[in-house]
Amino acid sequence: MAQIVHKYTLLILLSVLIMHSLFTSVHSRKFQEKKPCKRFTLYFHDILFNGTNLANATAATAVNRTQLGNYKHGMLVVFDDPMTKQNNLLTPPVARAQGFYFYDTKDAYNAWFAYTLIFNSTEHKGTLNIMGADLMGEEMRDLSVVGGTGDFFMTRGIATFRTDGQPDAFYFRVKMDIKLYECY
Amino acid sequence: MAQIVHKYTLLILLSVLIMHSLFTSVHSRKFQEKKPCKRFTLYFHDILFNGTNLANATAATAVNRTQLGNYKHGMLVVFDDPMTKQNNLLTPPVARAQGFYFYDTKDAYNAWFAYTLIFNSTEHKGTLNIMGADLMGEEMRDLSVVGGTGDFFMTRGIATFRTDGQPDAFYFRVKMDIKLYECY
Amino acid sequence: MAQIVHKYTLLILLSVLIMHSLFTSVHSRKFQEKKPCKRFTLYFHDILFNGTNLANATAATAVNRTQLGNYKHGMLVVFDDPMTKQNNLLTPPVARAQGFYFYDTKDAYNAWFAYTLIFNSTEHKGTLNIMGADLMGEEMRDLSVVGGTGDFFMTRGIATFRTDGQPDAFYFRVKMDIKLYECY
Repeated sequence: MAQIVHKYTLLILLSVLIMHSLFTSVHSRKFQEKKPCKRFTLYFHDILFNGTNLANATAATAVNRTQLGNYKHGMLVVFDDPMTKQNNLLTPPVARAQGFYFYDTKDAYNAWFAYTLIFNSTEHKGTLNIMGADLMGEEMRDLSVVGGTGDFFMTRGIATFRTDGQPDAFYFRVKMDIKLYECY
Repeated sequence: MAQIVHKYTLLILLSVLIMHSLFTSVHSRKFQEKKPCKRFTLYFHDILFNGTNLANATAATAVNRTQLGNYKHGMLVVFDDPMTKQNNLLTPPVARAQGFYFYDTKDAYNAWFAYTLIFNSTEHKGTLNIMGADLMGEEMRDLSVVGGTGDFFMTRGIATFRTDGQPDAFYFRVKMDIKLYECY
Repeated sequence: MAQIVHKYTLLILLSVLIMHSLFTSVHSRKFQEKKPCKRFTLYFHDILFNGTNLANATAATAVNRTQLGNYKHGMLVVFDDPMTKQNNLLTPPVARAQGFYFYDTKDAYNAWFAYTLIFNSTEHKGTLNIMGADLMGEEMRDLSVVGGTGDFFMTRGIATFRTDGQPDAFYFRVKMDIKLYECY
């Protein structure tokens, strides 16, 4: 009899331990969620209005730079830019990026972004809301995906920026790698 | 004896399976959290300063529109607007909305909002922070509630906008349906 | 025999109940997460450009105030401000705060902030993204930490502001108490 008690007590303890480890992994959210639940890469095309390119422009300077340094400090751009899957402006856009950025540093080019990615295709309907610093001196810069709607209901994640080229003085292109870690 | 072992092994396995299903439902957060833990509807009254309505105005244009298109692209409004429970400006405000919006599109009216709802009544004390695109062409537009403080400590959710009318050229009203899905 | 069955059934039920209570505490996230998983206090030094202090200034007015009231409504400042551990500008900065604030109220001083704290030291590498209302009339004001990157991967929390002094007309200092409640 004592042996049976011993055996089952062990089994129950084991099951408690298994449960506890599961609980712990949920609570600390360490390993599962460092692996994205959804991931995609899009190219951001920012074509600034220069007074003559009304047909092509998708962004314009709303606030001029201040006199603090020589790196466009204070210049604020409002954009409604196309996002494509390839780094080619002529491929069909799969989303729009609507929002703004401004330059914020006296002695270097640094920008700060807040915008919404808007998806309205058969593949995805919904939005992702993103904000953070674009530290242009670094090859890769991480911003926060702070929320989402529609197909991206309540999601969170990281958007990694990488400068992909500046075809001309009024057009720059950023590769944005979107990794979502909280999906519903 | 073998029968008893069998019986309890089954019971323990069953309890492990039950636990596992509970764990899974926490992790994927599918069903529980599509039902709001808190929900309320408020009306946003935006009364733009036109130079003569200082007593009534609660918002003003801080940045003028750019020349990109004919839909007020770049115009940025800073507001401290009353929020009421009924769609009547004369009812007592239950919160303030402080923040800004700007128009961002060349060929349509679209705006981008970031603001804080401030509650300071016996019913609620605290704030909700909200950002996202207001795609005015659609009947209902979802923005993200990205955080909260006080009674709304760490909350997240969705704010659904619906245009409720434009009583005159300087006053527009938006019905905001706030649904919180993460409550503490 | 019946006694043994009874005994183990009780034990198993007990383990189920324990598991369930663990599950519940994860789901409602009540007690564990009202205690910060990380906490630190930093001082924000905002030194506005006044036309002659280019060497010291870290911020500048990008948008001038509107005519709505006498509390700088609409004035928007873009900053790249040092953050220190002591309330002394001469101590080495441990982070930068890059972003903007604007005044938004007709009849009081209230501001709205959105910015990124950038850490790049041996102690911390990464960013925290913060937004919310700075209700200057109150001693302590809570804003939302809505996301993070690097060492602060996906974090969320509260940033509590407290005015720490205004050494002169162009320099004000804010004590920011950062409490993170979701850590990974």
